[in-house]
Amino acid sequence: MENSKYHEIAEAAVQLFNKKGYHATSMQDIADYVGLQKGSLYHYISSKEELLERITSESISGFVRELERIVKKDISAKEKLEQAILMHFTRVTDNIPMTTILLRESFSLSDDPHELIKKATDHYLNLWSQIIEEGMKSGEFKSGDPRIAALTILGSCNWAYRWYQEGGKYENVEIAKYVTNMWIQGIIFV
Amino acid sequence: MENSKYHEIAEAAVQLFNKKGYHATSMQDIADYVGLQKGSLYHYISSKEELLERITSESISGFVRELERIVKKDISAKEKLEQAILMHFTRVTDNIPMTTILLRESFSLSDDPHELIKKATDHYLNLWSQIIEEGMKSGEFKSGDPRIAALTILGSCNWAYRWYQEGGKYENVEIAKYVTNMWIQGIIFV
Repeated sequence: MENSKYHEIAEAAVQLFNKKGYHATSMQDIADYVGLQKGSLYHYISSKEELLERITSESISGFVRELERIVKKDISAKEKLEQAILMHFTRVTDNIPMTTILLRESFSLSDDPHELIKKATDHYLNLWSQIIEEGMKSGEFKSGDPRIAALTILGSCNWAYRWYQEGGKYENVEIAKYVTNMWIQGIIFV
Repeated sequence: MENSKYHEIAEAAVQLFNKKGYHATSMQDIADYVGLQKGSLYHYISSKEELLERITSESISGFVRELERIVKKDISAKEKLEQAILMHFTRVTDNIPMTTILLRESFSLSDDPHELIKKATDHYLNLWSQIIEEGMKSGEFKSGDPRIAALTILGSCNWAYRWYQEGGKYENVEIAKYVTNMWIQGIIFV
């Protein structure tokens, strides 16, 4: 019961932080959204920052969990990269408000919680780099810098939180496949 | 004289908005940074939002101006795309604080100025799509959706505002060339 109220509050925070931004959202806004007195909110959460912390941490954990699964598979680096791009793009666009908060608002966290998100993000990036390095070593991928390649591929998918709209011309999975293809094969006819 | 003071104030705003975020920066912070009384700031600017408006508008205009030059050139679509990626990546990373404000803080603008930035950004995106469409029509590029391809390539470069650090392992121009290459030829050995 308390738990379901907490989830309602967290969901309100996701919607409001996404729409108005973290700084511009007040505890009063959140209370109004869920139909509680502002004072009653503190029964469920200690601060607005706690909400931001939980939302961002839940979001990045989801990405990490999925990628860890892919990394462990007994498949080629090329297949891992394809699955990683598909997973990442789809996850970014499946829940735009939550991704927006992770990508746009994390920097508003104070030092300690921000450090935790940064650590999880670094771990995630390392897993990506590992896949790419594996492919470079096996000769599947052209040689280069795995970390920069990972950051560039991630950037191309992350940006979709700014432009992808549900109900548009294409489903997100279709776009994810197109993006995967562009990365794997390049844009030029060879 | 007045003009140079304005530039000092704008530069202070760029540094502070980048570091603390637009919302968390006060007019008092800006006054302190340039060593003026808060009241004297209003001699040069009417509001904090005016600063955000001018910074974002100057930033996007620079990107548009450079891309218009490339689009007009009498070269192949492939060469245009190469030059566009090089230009865009280099410009994003040449002035990280200003790009950060354009990419992270524009959404804090109120409706009218936000609309102007969105229009300029749309125009910029259209120019990118035009290059890619040209290459798809001429058979230089694989067929696909020019707008999604443009957004994906832009995203891969834009993201660098989050990770590129001056004085790191590579110069930004080196990374720009690597990113261009990854896009043009793909990551896989074929």
